[in-house]
Amino acid sequence: MVTVGFVGLGVMGKPMARNLLKAGFSLVVHNRSRGSVAELVAEGAASASSPAEVAGKVDVVITCLPDSPDVERVALGPDGIVHGIREGGIYVDMSTISPVTTQKIADALAEKGAFMLDAPVSGGEEGAINATLSIMVGGSEAAFQTCLPVFQAMGRKVTHMGGTGAGQVTKACNQIITALQVTAVAEALVLGAKAGVDPQRIVEAIAGGAARCWALEQRAPWMIQHRFTPGFKSAYHYKDLLIAVDTAKAFGVSLPVSGLVCQLYGAMKAMGKGDLDNSAIVTLFEELAHTHLVSG
Amino acid sequence: MVTVGFVGLGVMGKPMARNLLKAGFSLVVHNRSRGSVAELVAEGAASASSPAEVAGKVDVVITCLPDSPDVERVALGPDGIVHGIREGGIYVDMSTISPVTTQKIADALAEKGAFMLDAPVSGGEEGAINATLSIMVGGSEAAFQTCLPVFQAMGRKVTHMGGTGAGQVTKACNQIITALQVTAVAEALVLGAKAGVDPQRIVEAIAGGAARCWALEQRAPWMIQHRFTPGFKSAYHYKDLLIAVDTAKAFGVSLPVSGLVCQLYGAMKAMGKGDLDNSAIVTLFEELAHTHLVSG
Repeated sequence: MVTVGFVGLGVMGKPMARNLLKAGFSLVVHNRSRGSVAELVAEGAASASSPAEVAGKVDVVITCLPDSPDVERVALGPDGIVHGIREGGIYVDMSTISPVTTQKIADALAEKGAFMLDAPVSGGEEGAINATLSIMVGGSEAAFQTCLPVFQAMGRKVTHMGGTGAGQVTKACNQIITALQVTAVAEALVLGAKAGVDPQRIVEAIAGGAARCWALEQRAPWMIQHRFTPGFKSAYHYKDLLIAVDTAKAFGVSLPVSGLVCQLYGAMKAMGKGDLDNSAIVTLFEELAHTHLVSG
Repeated sequence: MVTVGFVGLGVMGKPMARNLLKAGFSLVVHNRSRGSVAELVAEGAASASSPAEVAGKVDVVITCLPDSPDVERVALGPDGIVHGIREGGIYVDMSTISPVTTQKIADALAEKGAFMLDAPVSGGEEGAINATLSIMVGGSEAAFQTCLPVFQAMGRKVTHMGGTGAGQVTKACNQIITALQVTAVAEALVLGAKAGVDPQRIVEAIAGGAARCWALEQRAPWMIQHRFTPGFKSAYHYKDLLIAVDTAKAFGVSLPVSGLVCQLYGAMKAMGKGDLDNSAIVTLFEELAHTHLVSG
């Protein structure tokens, strides 16, 4: 059984690390704020004072952090993973970041004789707690096979997508489709409601046909109730769409619709709605149409 | 049992009319080209020489035509339905047209003491043949109840959405969501492929999560194979998105994303791709990225 390190014990990272302990892995943790560290130490983990120190103690070191700059700092900055990782060690980044940053870090690790996997997840906090995450992995087949039992302790569906960055690219594809679905349902319901049709009835009429999708099934009810407790925060979807657009730039791809939806999620953040669920994009279209989905 | 007239025996109308005959309705038909009329007469229908004449002979007269101007001509033009319809008669338009045009026709019929239902369908040619269409109906409850057995002979899911135009509004909502789904999947797969990830593997990795939708399940395989036999023609989806945008204008709604996707489907038509399935929008993004989804 490989030994594992975990850096970044946030909303996602803490329950993921806890599932590694439950599965019997020997675990070393590190986090900027100390509360989560103390919790996991009480449950059997060891702690270390820096990412470099974690990396020096384990076979596989994992990060789960908010965004590309955070990962770059923890991986390559002072006291970063690259300064402590063993030759032959594997660094697994489970954050959702730019595949361009991923490649840069993988290159730096390769110079130390270490390996990197990008392994972003989907399934949210609930998936992290219940170990039902989907995990999309990029990197070498050998490193993937070594880490597979680690992934299986945190997720249900683990897919090796290809070389370095392929996991992040797949996650970007996922985030494009989910954002555009939510936006589609929001625009449709605002049109329907302002044209005088009960949005609930619209959902019922079309949900069984070609319009059927996760957003229509799971988020249309939230939109109609104006219940916007996340779920998945608008500001995070904005960040993920910026990654998609950044990836498009890097690879020479034009994404006209995703680019527009990215800007709309930017507006949500600017309007102070970044902490609401991404389905709150409906409130933007309500404002643009000077209307409200439900008049009642 | 009400007597029924049917005007517009095209790809959708002919099998729908045939299902009325099969269900035992006494049927009078009219069509601009005569071949379909002869077929249905051989199967037991009567024929009439104009929409007005059809309307004069039946309780319920149905149209199924390509676009708003066609319906307006057949309903209100010389020899149109309004000139023949009986007092208390019901006109049912099953085309997909603008709810604004629907309202105009309904008003003209009301002056003759007749009623109108808008009853657009989804489910395509296959649904028309197998009597499994979804039918979204706007108009008075009494007229809806009178026509319900007629609808049930042609469709499986029949929903009364509200007053005049509510059926067309619902159909517009449906077409917004389906177009944006297809576009989302197309942009995502072009990004993924050009970034070096196998698009088939992307579909498999994300199809079970929040990205799941009809387009990812049913049309991603067509995109990957470049198999663009409709299905649902790009030019028709362009027409339907123009209706959505026109409806938005009429009701004071702004649809930034649907507006953009409408313009992209306009590009498809301009590029001579109007007869391809709507999933061929992927070829537009391929061209914009100077790439091809599958290199093999």
